[in-house]
Amino acid sequence: MAEPTAEDWMQEALHEARMAYLIGEVPIGAVIVHQGEIIGRGHNLREHGQDATMHAEIIAIQEACEYLHSWRLEDCQLYVTLEPCLMCSGAIINARLPELYFGARDPKAGAVRSLYQVMDDTRLNHQVTVHERVLARPAGEMLENFFRGIRKRKKAAKKARREAAEKN
Amino acid sequence: MAEPTAEDWMQEALHEARMAYLIGEVPIGAVIVHQGEIIGRGHNLREHGQDATMHAEIIAIQEACEYLHSWRLEDCQLYVTLEPCLMCSGAIINARLPELYFGARDPKAGAVRSLYQVMDDTRLNHQVTVHERVLARPAGEMLENFFRGIRKRKKAAKKARREAAEKN
Repeated sequence: MAEPTAEDWMQEALHEARMAYLIGEVPIGAVIVHQGEIIGRGHNLREHGQDATMHAEIIAIQEACEYLHSWRLEDCQLYVTLEPCLMCSGAIINARLPELYFGARDPKAGAVRSLYQVMDDTRLNHQVTVHERVLARPAGEMLENFFRGIRKRKKAAKKARREAAEKN
Repeated sequence: MAEPTAEDWMQEALHEARMAYLIGEVPIGAVIVHQGEIIGRGHNLREHGQDATMHAEIIAIQEACEYLHSWRLEDCQLYVTLEPCLMCSGAIINARLPELYFGARDPKAGAVRSLYQVMDDTRLNHQVTVHERVLARPAGEMLENFFRGIRKRKKAAKKARREAAEKN
């Protein structure tokens, strides 16, 4: 059987993102691979958990640390559907993850390519090899659909309120 | 009774740092204050938890979110003995914390003043008011003592090994 490719692992991260989508969370998913096996997975749970730290990457890192009984995630790759924010980028560096694969760029909060390039910062005690735009299109489309749905529902609610006001 | 000052709250963060010190963790502590009450506290537990995300600030933020049943820590102040790293700075921004007080600067990993100034970044959707050098001296001295102790133990172990080798 052929070795899984980066796209195969990113499909698993996309699967996690879909799980977030289905429960109304911003659809972002992540998996951590160690020696050809997924040892951590997570999807955004900020609203359900009412916890600002519950991003897909943080949940996946915590699970992987628990699995390896180690805060050092050496020899691991993290796959995430969206460019990590400052918090998650810092967590990836703190966990000494050597390799990151991400899908779509995040122009508003991305700390790997968009607003900052913290993975390449040689002043820090760890650098991360970055592979970007892996299945960026489905990851980006899922986010766009999600936010389009929110706007549509807001518009419909506004229209219903206006019609109700006109009736009274 | 007089209102507690920033120094009073930082004493609580220093108390947390001492708890880390006593169990051999790098001594960093944090508390989160909401309407004159501590609703989250934490000290570094990276080694005991074997979890790269278990910094004092992250633990305190998770506890405060749980207490308020909200990922938004509006109307809260975070006190931490050392300048936050990228991960913790990002978490503070993600939690919409309006105010940060920290003790000593961290020239190697600090993301608030030393390496980055992310709290002032107007490209992000939240900025944080920063007060630094609050009880910086005891916070810094505790860290220095900790690392001096480690170096001393390492030196003693090296000497013991050399003497054992000479005897054989």
